[in-house]
Amino acid sequence: MAVAAAQRDRTAAVRITVLGATGSIGQSLADLIERNPDRFEVAALVANRNAGLLADMAGRLNAALAVLADESQFQDLQDRLQGTGISVSAGENAVLEAVDRDTDLVVGAIVGSAGLIPTMRAIRPGRRIALANKECLVCAGDLFMGKIRETGAELLPVDSEHNAIYQVFEADKADQVESVILTASGGPFRTFSKADMNKVTPAQALKHPNWDMGARITIDSATMMNKGFEVIEASHLFPISHDQLAVLVHPQSVVHGLVQYKDGSLLAQLGSPDMRTPIAHCLAYPERMEVPVKRLDLAEIAQLNFEAPDLDRFPALRLALEAMKAGRGAPAALNAADEVAVAAFLSGQIGFLDIPAAIEAVLEELEKADALATADCVEAILELDGAARAKTSEWIKSRCL
Amino acid sequence: MAVAAAQRDRTAAVRITVLGATGSIGQSLADLIERNPDRFEVAALVANRNAGLLADMAGRLNAALAVLADESQFQDLQDRLQGTGISVSAGENAVLEAVDRDTDLVVGAIVGSAGLIPTMRAIRPGRRIALANKECLVCAGDLFMGKIRETGAELLPVDSEHNAIYQVFEADKADQVESVILTASGGPFRTFSKADMNKVTPAQALKHPNWDMGARITIDSATMMNKGFEVIEASHLFPISHDQLAVLVHPQSVVHGLVQYKDGSLLAQLGSPDMRTPIAHCLAYPERMEVPVKRLDLAEIAQLNFEAPDLDRFPALRLALEAMKAGRGAPAALNAADEVAVAAFLSGQIGFLDIPAAIEAVLEELEKADALATADCVEAILELDGAARAKTSEWIKSRCL
Repeated sequence: MAVAAAQRDRTAAVRITVLGATGSIGQSLADLIERNPDRFEVAALVANRNAGLLADMAGRLNAALAVLADESQFQDLQDRLQGTGISVSAGENAVLEAVDRDTDLVVGAIVGSAGLIPTMRAIRPGRRIALANKECLVCAGDLFMGKIRETGAELLPVDSEHNAIYQVFEADKADQVESVILTASGGPFRTFSKADMNKVTPAQALKHPNWDMGARITIDSATMMNKGFEVIEASHLFPISHDQLAVLVHPQSVVHGLVQYKDGSLLAQLGSPDMRTPIAHCLAYPERMEVPVKRLDLAEIAQLNFEAPDLDRFPALRLALEAMKAGRGAPAALNAADEVAVAAFLSGQIGFLDIPAAIEAVLEELEKADALATADCVEAILELDGAARAKTSEWIKSRCL
Repeated sequence: MAVAAAQRDRTAAVRITVLGATGSIGQSLADLIERNPDRFEVAALVANRNAGLLADMAGRLNAALAVLADESQFQDLQDRLQGTGISVSAGENAVLEAVDRDTDLVVGAIVGSAGLIPTMRAIRPGRRIALANKECLVCAGDLFMGKIRETGAELLPVDSEHNAIYQVFEADKADQVESVILTASGGPFRTFSKADMNKVTPAQALKHPNWDMGARITIDSATMMNKGFEVIEASHLFPISHDQLAVLVHPQSVVHGLVQYKDGSLLAQLGSPDMRTPIAHCLAYPERMEVPVKRLDLAEIAQLNFEAPDLDRFPALRLALEAMKAGRGAPAALNAADEVAVAAFLSGQIGFLDIPAAIEAVLEELEKADALATADCVEAILELDGAARAKTSEWIKSRCL
């Protein structure tokens, strides 16, 4: 029974800024905020281009400000929020201005590398960052964590696996942790041979058993690249070395993460697959708030299975682990190449196993060209991101000729 | 990642007094102390009558004092430790004098109600009590916890299930805990029908699959009475209500305990079935010390199963839950009746299902005689203990006629 860190003043509402408000994280978050109107105050909601949903959310959550990154939808947003007293703005600068506004907690839930600059800018002293954007840690982990440490901002992971680990990682005992274990569902092809995987269609790959997710992350789960990204993120989030990170395949996806201590204790967080639990953990930490998710009934589930991941059948996971160890620009290039290769698979241009093949070829080429060496500012990372995308497109084109 | 409570001064060795040194907890503890000679200092080792083992341990651990409760073995102990510089004494008063000596941590591992008086006496300000004796909480829980609270002594549970729960119970968030779940192996008769159980022999019941334990606790595991005792203990150890306590059958016995929080998170402690892990947790808390137990390899174990307990086939568990809810003298009478009934089963006097039948009859009779009402001092509890034993013996005799 550890005594938690200093508690927040419970009398004042926590001001929240949401980057990526109209995505699935934003929706789950909105549900929690609506259930706790006295506890939270929405400083700003930022979305890309869904004016209808953003306006609806801003009204429901009584947000002070609603911002669209895409200026072309500004008029629509303005019309919808006319007379509500909710401020509106649009464009890239408007996003950054929203980030600069006074707030206590920034939820970084923009999908993709578009999240890099605004989320990084959100980091400042006294703020809590609830991070759901993958690229901040996968592509710019050293920079991002450097700024977290420098400012003393508090970083909490939203992703269910990292949040699980965070819940059972005793922060002051990092030297007493032996390993950190991320669980993986194994995806829909967990039991497939390589020959079977070669014939997989996008429709098959999009049927993911446990979580309701977007198309790219669903394919990344099927290749296990997603787990690779999560291992890279964990390597930045937790003060441990690369070889202390492990992946455990667990098809039921109810054990989200585990931490092995040197006294033999293995601590785990379990729960129903509902993002409201980790989001609520980030909102209320170090307290816990009531969340109306189905409680896990282990007697009803009856059986939990575990197996070691197979890096031969799932080369994407191997590539991610290698990129983590290589460091510098390798994870950013891995992510960019993966995004392009997944899109090509989804559009029927390449096969399922071509996804890791493309990524491996592109990483090798970039490594040879010494293009993975520098990742010391966001601009350099975004440039590398562009180069990796171009190379991947070239590889795909040459493959399709 | 919770920040732990104030840490101990690591430079000074922790002085340990062990009550019940020659039992299995004492043996595991000795292994840990021997591996960490600079970290611990043994103030006193107290045993019942095993002079040979006590003398051996006192020598190995360089104890300041070795004490036997049974005076008849004193000469033997004295002979064995002659010239070692280790002080020796014997008798009930010698045990209490050993308890009174300056020490930082008292391991309360005496088996049975003989542990009540010395363990209770060990509670005082500034001390940590690592509790392995069941009777202190089952029979005298209100008194014991009252003294813990009054003195401000620190209580840590050694039992693997309670220790597991302690590891994931966020002490400052008791109001945020929904339930505490103790796992149970289900024992060797988990899948037996009542008709099958009726024919069970002591030899069959003594084959317990997961832990190396004494005969009584093995039978108590087979009837699930042991789990009932543990639920009663948990009701005293953790600031929760009776209806927040649940039992989950888990044959592999690697998940030792779980805590359900109101945000949907279910935290668990897992580990190999080796008592050195929970003992080390008590010794090093809030730090963790290196323990050479086999690390749990979930991929190797491959499968974990869970099921709800069946109170119809395992009436002993039902009786324990009822005794917990009845409170006052009921748990003490339950424990005493169980001890006598188990002994009668082991000696072939009664059948396996007669164990709960005897206990139920005795509790009903004592309740009718209003004998369960008072349990407000150790003497009253010991008297009730004696009365319950006598009644159980009578029941067994009448059964055997």
